[in-house]
Amino acid sequence: MRSLLLVICFVFGFTATAMAADVSKLQLAGDLTLTQARTVMHAAMVKAEAQGVPMNIAIVDAGGHLRAFERMDGAFIGSIDISIKKAMTARYFNMSTQDLGAASQVGKPLYGIEVSNNGLMIFGGGELLKNKDGVIVGAIGVSGGSVEEDMAVAKAGVSSFK
Amino acid sequence: MRSLLLVICFVFGFTATAMAADVSKLQLAGDLTLTQARTVMHAAMVKAEAQGVPMNIAIVDAGGHLRAFERMDGAFIGSIDISIKKAMTARYFNMSTQDLGAASQVGKPLYGIEVSNNGLMIFGGGELLKNKDGVIVGAIGVSGGSVEEDMAVAKAGVSSFK
Amino acid sequence: MRSLLLVICFVFGFTATAMAADVSKLQLAGDLTLTQARTVMHAAMVKAEAQGVPMNIAIVDAGGHLRAFERMDGAFIGSIDISIKKAMTARYFNMSTQDLGAASQVGKPLYGIEVSNNGLMIFGGGELLKNKDGVIVGAIGVSGGSVEEDMAVAKAGVSSFK
Amino acid sequence: MRSLLLVICFVFGFTATAMAADVSKLQLAGDLTLTQARTVMHAAMVKAEAQGVPMNIAIVDAGGHLRAFERMDGAFIGSIDISIKKAMTARYFNMSTQDLGAASQVGKPLYGIEVSNNGLMIFGGGELLKNKDGVIVGAIGVSGGSVEEDMAVAKAGVSSFK
Repeated sequence: MRSLLLVICFVFGFTATAMAADVSKLQLAGDLTLTQARTVMHAAMVKAEAQGVPMNIAIVDAGGHLRAFERMDGAFIGSIDISIKKAMTARYFNMSTQDLGAASQVGKPLYGIEVSNNGLMIFGGGELLKNKDGVIVGAIGVSGGSVEEDMAVAKAGVSSFK
Repeated sequence: MRSLLLVICFVFGFTATAMAADVSKLQLAGDLTLTQARTVMHAAMVKAEAQGVPMNIAIVDAGGHLRAFERMDGAFIGSIDISIKKAMTARYFNMSTQDLGAASQVGKPLYGIEVSNNGLMIFGGGELLKNKDGVIVGAIGVSGGSVEEDMAVAKAGVSSFK
Repeated sequence: MRSLLLVICFVFGFTATAMAADVSKLQLAGDLTLTQARTVMHAAMVKAEAQGVPMNIAIVDAGGHLRAFERMDGAFIGSIDISIKKAMTARYFNMSTQDLGAASQVGKPLYGIEVSNNGLMIFGGGELLKNKDGVIVGAIGVSGGSVEEDMAVAKAGVSSFK
Repeated sequence: MRSLLLVICFVFGFTATAMAADVSKLQLAGDLTLTQARTVMHAAMVKAEAQGVPMNIAIVDAGGHLRAFERMDGAFIGSIDISIKKAMTARYFNMSTQDLGAASQVGKPLYGIEVSNNGLMIFGGGELLKNKDGVIVGAIGVSGGSVEEDMAVAKAGVSSFK
């Protein structure tokens, strides 16, 4: 059992320590780490597999910059950009893309907002990642299935994040 | 030992089977799979860790589209785009970015090519991924250190691919 | 009191004189000055502070080009672009973004205009800056809260401008 | 003298306190504040005035996103984009644009890097902003005069930052 843990550690955990000293000058303390992003990615992937619909999954940090991305076999090529934009959109406006979308429908106050920032995504599938204190440290964006399926995968990723 | 393999399978291998039927209609047989991309990513990461310089690592499929991406803690934000463009550039011209760069220097035949395709990268760090028969199935792009360091990580990824 | 004014002058007013000779050849007489833009920015900021919602505030000149910009702590990252685009949009069509938006709704004459000019903003928060004679010399764009909150800040900026 | 300080406080200092509670969830602790950006902007402006060449000055936060911008009367319209890109470039690669440029000249390893990231600036005038512990929290970009003049203004901004 111990060797199992060591293997898992080796596979997932080897990033954090080796370069900690330098890294502390290069990104703000508290920003999303790669180790955290992998945990979120894994949880989202487990949900996507369970649903059986191939997905693109993107994770961004507090600055809205890509941290991790995976495209499942057979997932839409066109959803690469959508998943990344969903994650960015959520962080750019500090709310889920579903909530932003609700305010951007025909006749709603933010109608037309999607042409800003080189293209925002205003339907569900982008969710915020917050730490234990409620500080926003990143976001996840998912695209590949129905909006409901995308949202379920994004929320599975969020649930894994503490 | 068997349970260890099962766990590893669960962690890395769960993608391939569940949706195999549909996927066979959605992407070309022999195209880079997510499982393969993860193997390449892992090998590249091991090398990057050993070098101690934080990297952005991107992997694209035979169509030149993003398959997997990871940014190590403290890696340049500006290298997200560069690593992806290196991988795309290598696949777009079926040669390493180093080789393309050699032909694109001042006074050389392809001088100026880098402004095409929304920006190509014409220095080392983008390498092709070929299967056992020499068929190009994707590429890896690495950015974050010196060109030599980037190339070493990209080649470590390539070496893991069979 | 005199020395106070001198200090204020030193802090805010030092732009106008030193390079006046050259500047008169470089921008149209009557175009928005940096000193004026700062006055508008300050008035808008006072209103934003009073509302307690963090804002992005952008000011453009008669050519529609950015003159001054500030993002309050915690204001949406995605509103950098929106505030600038609101200011540009107002000047590009010589009306508030609210008025342009009213003409751009589904079924209205300008439906779809927002995809022009690399993305226009067609909801409130962009207002014209006119001099005493009613000549348009620039615009202000505000983004960060509800459309009503954005508009209130933009109008506070306009009110300060004579 | 006291009333002078009160006025200065009113003008420059009113941002920090009012919305501190909410802001702490919306941007990472330690990221560049607007108050800090204004101090840097002011110091850079004083230097620009002393040089007598009209400048565009842009300041970005740790995520590379615009925090503050001012264009002096008569400053190049084309330098709006250049000043912003200089600040972003410095943060994206954690070095001054002068240093990045030195590695990107004809025959150098990073030749051609400038076409990435929607256009990088690879000549002097972009400098990092670091806190007392050496953590990178933003950058300043200056454009309007000779490269030497731009760099002098950027460095004056950096010097004011503690």
